[in-house]
Amino acid sequence: MPPILPDVKPDDIILTGDRTTGALHLGHYVGSLVNRVVLQERCTQFLLLADAQALTDNMGDYLKVRSNVLEVALDYLAVGIDPAKSTVFIQSLVPELSELASYYLNLVTVARLERNPTIKEEIKQRGFERNIPVGFLTYPAAQAADITAFKATVVPVGEDQIPMIEQTNEIVRRFNASVAAPILVECRAEVPKVGRLPGVDGKAKMSKSLGNTIALSASPDDIRDAVKKMYTDPKHLRVEDPGRVEGNVVFTYLDAFEPDAATLAELKNRYRKGGLADSVLKKHLEERLQEVIAPIRARRAEFAQDPQAVWDMLKVGTRRARDTAAQTLAEVKSAMGLTYF
Amino acid sequence: MPPILPDVKPDDIILTGDRTTGALHLGHYVGSLVNRVVLQERCTQFLLLADAQALTDNMGDYLKVRSNVLEVALDYLAVGIDPAKSTVFIQSLVPELSELASYYLNLVTVARLERNPTIKEEIKQRGFERNIPVGFLTYPAAQAADITAFKATVVPVGEDQIPMIEQTNEIVRRFNASVAAPILVECRAEVPKVGRLPGVDGKAKMSKSLGNTIALSASPDDIRDAVKKMYTDPKHLRVEDPGRVEGNVVFTYLDAFEPDAATLAELKNRYRKGGLADSVLKKHLEERLQEVIAPIRARRAEFAQDPQAVWDMLKVGTRRARDTAAQTLAEVKSAMGLTYF
Repeated sequence: MPPILPDVKPDDIILTGDRTTGALHLGHYVGSLVNRVVLQERCTQFLLLADAQALTDNMGDYLKVRSNVLEVALDYLAVGIDPAKSTVFIQSLVPELSELASYYLNLVTVARLERNPTIKEEIKQRGFERNIPVGFLTYPAAQAADITAFKATVVPVGEDQIPMIEQTNEIVRRFNASVAAPILVECRAEVPKVGRLPGVDGKAKMSKSLGNTIALSASPDDIRDAVKKMYTDPKHLRVEDPGRVEGNVVFTYLDAFEPDAATLAELKNRYRKGGLADSVLKKHLEERLQEVIAPIRARRAEFAQDPQAVWDMLKVGTRRARDTAAQTLAEVKSAMGLTYF
Repeated sequence: MPPILPDVKPDDIILTGDRTTGALHLGHYVGSLVNRVVLQERCTQFLLLADAQALTDNMGDYLKVRSNVLEVALDYLAVGIDPAKSTVFIQSLVPELSELASYYLNLVTVARLERNPTIKEEIKQRGFERNIPVGFLTYPAAQAADITAFKATVVPVGEDQIPMIEQTNEIVRRFNASVAAPILVECRAEVPKVGRLPGVDGKAKMSKSLGNTIALSASPDDIRDAVKKMYTDPKHLRVEDPGRVEGNVVFTYLDAFEPDAATLAELKNRYRKGGLADSVLKKHLEERLQEVIAPIRARRAEFAQDPQAVWDMLKVGTRRARDTAAQTLAEVKSAMGLTYF
């Protein structure tokens, strides 16, 4: 599977990560994890296990947020993220981020936050109306802290998250103007050039709660069952009928997971003309997915046998992240004159 | 001058303080400082130099906020606050407060903050409309952090600040319910039983920018000039005319600063009947104010000669405050399961 890379340079600093609300799945793998494994060889990369961010709409669901820190870390290790090359850290253990965010809150207005299209959409989707938890509305300031603390220059995001990055850069410019010094660094959004993997049911959003994902720890049976459930072309009733490739979930997955272009073209051709049974097509996809997931599952199981080693890895990464964030915070506070002794 | 005390008990913990936007004046003295000097003998008292809070609507005006940390600390020492008895600390140097606040933001909705009468009023007064800095809207969560970090049981406030304390207690109850443990402590608002001292121009609000205050560092000439400018009864034109005592600024000040009740009663009586000149009345008040301020000014000047000693005092207080806040934060994070290594 070819990695889909944004235009990063060796001196770029990447900040990205995941909310710790569930183990990761094939959608994460295609959309970002593959990217990260390549990018860690090429530039500086900070990977945030966003437990504090997960709490903004999961207060009370503490166990879920906490236990998934380990799950996501295992997923990272399983796909080949190397803690010696990427700094993997736990957000809630870097208090410098809250402190930075608290100052950024003064640089943005309520009206501006409410106009943020990403926030607007999420508020609508979740049916919050005015009953938005404040921490949810103020999330862009927290995210600006996450990004700027590491002086990140690149943030890989989906198209829909671009307004968040614009908001971060607005805060950067306002802060720098207010202290008349280039303390904070603007970043650029890089949208991975890859289509979003749909759920196995064809829904655009892959989500564990919808039961339409394939986890990175999926067993061979899980994978077989998931592929079996996949939507194809509902009008492709008999093998000899011509079938549609576009919008056919199995082909969308094959686009992502069939490494051989000629094989893929041939399958599409046969399906369009008629004569390729869904069961044969699915068998082909299943094989590809089994091949992709088998080594990930094996490595995951190996790492899972020694959770203490994973915690130790996170401890080192978090220490490293804190050192960097503390340095930025010190510059920010010094520029504001908030250094007393 | 009799101290006006709220109903505090020896095991109460008080949290109060001042925004560091200007040196303190007689309004602060009457409304709170006198109280604090007495209370430090009676219970545990934390005094917050709120530089971070001051920044919520002073971003960019860093020098003002920073320099007034020392000014307010000098005022504290000058009136008799004893750093061995009260813990005086600098807010921005206790990062645990930002961290607590960041979690509290998840426990309150935007609608609830906007309904907060104190915030509503301030937004109206400052003409913010929807262009409120977010840090200003979210201030109640930050204040809840300031209070709960020290497990304060008493917060001395003006009548208009009571809704802020209610909001803090709402957060306390929500947090404790969410972790099913009594980690945070509710507090009670104590409204000092003393009228608010008006500006020397009779305006309800005393403010340095309105030029209607008498600073605790006022020179004898400043005091004389301020009393000269005071509003009396505009209809009291001739000495022999009867005069009004109610709403007469000079009498409002005498209510606060004339220690002898009989003298005060006689002055009021003579003024009401007619025959007491404004100039004589003002001379009397001026003497009282000179007596009150002279020792404060002298002590202030003495402390000001050795700013390093003041910084050292603040360093010790801040260290002590951090230890307490860190303990509370550790309990909060542990209750949420955010303890990893």
